[in-house]
Amino acid sequence: MTSALLDSLKYDANGLIPAIIQDHATGEVLMFAFMNRVSLAKTLETGKTHFFSRSRNKLWLKGESSGHTQDVKSIQTDCDLDVVLIKVEQQGAACHDGYYSCFYRQRDETDSTEWKIIGKKVFDPEKVYSK
Amino acid sequence: MTSALLDSLKYDANGLIPAIIQDHATGEVLMFAFMNRVSLAKTLETGKTHFFSRSRNKLWLKGESSGHTQDVKSIQTDCDLDVVLIKVEQQGAACHDGYYSCFYRQRDETDSTEWKIIGKKVFDPEKVYSK
Repeated sequence: MTSALLDSLKYDANGLIPAIIQDHATGEVLMFAFMNRVSLAKTLETGKTHFFSRSRNKLWLKGESSGHTQDVKSIQTDCDLDVVLIKVEQQGAACHDGYYSCFYRQRDETDSTEWKIIGKKVFDPEKVYSK
Repeated sequence: MTSALLDSLKYDANGLIPAIIQDHATGEVLMFAFMNRVSLAKTLETGKTHFFSRSRNKLWLKGESSGHTQDVKSIQTDCDLDVVLIKVEQQGAACHDGYYSCFYRQRDETDSTEWKIIGKKVFDPEKVYSK
């Protein structure tokens, strides 16, 4: 992505842009995080998603601890040029809780006081993150 | 959605939570916007998506001008309980520019200085919004 494309996007007052990450093959939404101009440039340069952590105030490579990186297949933006949608091939699983997608909780129509877990655990976080 | 579920979510310092809207049948991501507790409660109460506009500082029903409402099919949240993913049946089209999805621009590998329009126009915004 050239700087022209990076410049065309609208970042918020903190220099951030929301990023939606979607499985390129199934369309499943895997995660949501913020990027800044540097992390987006890095994502395009390397072909692997990089985000910006507001709590840690640093750039991070998705999968840097777990090995569960995301290979970029395409990048889209919206009508207002202030959100990016990135389709990826997910290595391992996207969620640090061990689920393929972070969106593993769904409202249950029959019991509306609790979120129902609809995802399947594909790895044990304690094993992956204690390496 | 009971208040217990609404209370379980984490809103940011401005009381907002990011909402990803996805076509329930095809998995296409249609739009991204912010909700607050009131707009989320209204969404669940009516079965039609409502958002909170930061620029206009008000609640809005998606489709209030265009008639292009979104019927809620399911609502999911992520590992951190700070984003919602809502699957909908879209009436008309999601984007005010006349495209079915707001994410109608994609990076073109062969010409990386411009976004390529990959969506198809399904309505004429001038006709729909001048009603």
